[in-house]
Amino acid sequence: MTMQRQVQRQVTRHAQGEQVQHVHDQLVVEEPLEIRIGDDPIAVLMRTPGDDIPLAVGFLFSEGILSHPDQVLSAAHCTNSQGDSAGNIVRVIAESPDPDATEKARREVYASSSCGMCGKTTLDSVRLLCPPIQAAEALSTSLLLSLPERLRAEQQLFHDTGGLHAAGLFSSSGEMIMVREDIGRHNACDKILGAMVLREQWPLHQHMMVLSGRASFEMVQKAAMAGIGAVVAVSAPSSLAVDLAKELGITLVGFLRSGSLNVYNGEVSA
Amino acid sequence: MTMQRQVQRQVTRHAQGEQVQHVHDQLVVEEPLEIRIGDDPIAVLMRTPGDDIPLAVGFLFSEGILSHPDQVLSAAHCTNSQGDSAGNIVRVIAESPDPDATEKARREVYASSSCGMCGKTTLDSVRLLCPPIQAAEALSTSLLLSLPERLRAEQQLFHDTGGLHAAGLFSSSGEMIMVREDIGRHNACDKILGAMVLREQWPLHQHMMVLSGRASFEMVQKAAMAGIGAVVAVSAPSSLAVDLAKELGITLVGFLRSGSLNVYNGEVSA
Repeated sequence: MTMQRQVQRQVTRHAQGEQVQHVHDQLVVEEPLEIRIGDDPIAVLMRTPGDDIPLAVGFLFSEGILSHPDQVLSAAHCTNSQGDSAGNIVRVIAESPDPDATEKARREVYASSSCGMCGKTTLDSVRLLCPPIQAAEALSTSLLLSLPERLRAEQQLFHDTGGLHAAGLFSSSGEMIMVREDIGRHNACDKILGAMVLREQWPLHQHMMVLSGRASFEMVQKAAMAGIGAVVAVSAPSSLAVDLAKELGITLVGFLRSGSLNVYNGEVSA
Repeated sequence: MTMQRQVQRQVTRHAQGEQVQHVHDQLVVEEPLEIRIGDDPIAVLMRTPGDDIPLAVGFLFSEGILSHPDQVLSAAHCTNSQGDSAGNIVRVIAESPDPDATEKARREVYASSSCGMCGKTTLDSVRLLCPPIQAAEALSTSLLLSLPERLRAEQQLFHDTGGLHAAGLFSSSGEMIMVREDIGRHNACDKILGAMVLREQWPLHQHMMVLSGRASFEMVQKAAMAGIGAVVAVSAPSSLAVDLAKELGITLVGFLRSGSLNVYNGEVSA
């Protein structure tokens, strides 16, 4: 079974003092992988397709669920009549998996449907949960280009240690509301969302979330749950992040650096 | 309650054509945070301390467990007689949390002990699970300095998309065994571990794991579970990654770039 590991998408490229270009961009594919022991779903990982069998087996070993190669009786993609989504489920038949480690390793399961897991069902489950998104006002290129430096100026802990991510909440007009840093990019985002909830400013319409690194599916999902209409990342977005942004009408900007940016969804003015 | 967000550690700095220096390095602190609704543990996140209450609340909102600020009746660090570990547990009293989203959001719980969670218990639980580590042979500076370029040469998907992490397994003598890429750094590592299990080459004594990015606790943990004696990262390690490496006798090298490197644990020869 082969699955795509990169996909091409049309983006608009804005650079200072240049005409807007419509170009094709290669995105890394992000899809959920469900790992089962027998018929028992153990975990769902967001991953880049490829090496799924080793990934499932490696996960079971690094979590301590299995500890000896002889315990792996078989490992294969789930096959069913639908076909195309079965590439996102790996079923491992294993001898004597450690029950405590199995319980410990259970992580969030986006969908427990039998062999029906794919990016589409993941998107559907987010759409059902999140509040309606108000489309962001068109952001200006010059405002966007100023954001990374403003974010960086607040990253004291990164400056000292070189070891972590930042997320910044800005109003649509460019006012910096707050910046938070964490070793996990998702934590930096959650710290901001929680602070706004505690201020009883919720949901966060007319705001944008600025990320010091990549825009993964989870980051756009978190913005969506907060009603945020624009996600702006210094680095690359994943395929599923772009899909979710399109599905929900969230403006998504990536590769915001060195005086240029790519628009993956929504409108950016000159 | 204030907790440190960075700590100072002694490291050895090796640079091409220069004397070895003993210097102090600032590390970003990584510690587990347990989030509870009432007395019910919902999730454990590895995070940088600070803004723990917003982080816990933000997590509950971005996971869809809560959706309106009025549902948050209180949120506070767990207090107990031990004191010092309570900073790693936040207890939220909430009205009508969504039961489905709560179940969906449960993630691995490193320890379910009452108010006894801290980096130390996390380290203990890893030490109990992982196979004995054979100390790595002393790696040479020149071999280590060659690794990032060799890793980078194999990162085809990164070259095309700019959006992901890589992990490489090398023998202690510098032979490249395999390189894997993924949007999640932990997945890249698990893909390698699983491939070696499937080859029935397990555990992986006399190997090193080379990482394109940071060395977090989870990455050192995965190496430990495979019996790998050396972890080598292009970017910064976290405090807990260093603690775990010291605890288990794993050589840990970080900031391996631009012709120099920092040794956080173990021996590196000139």
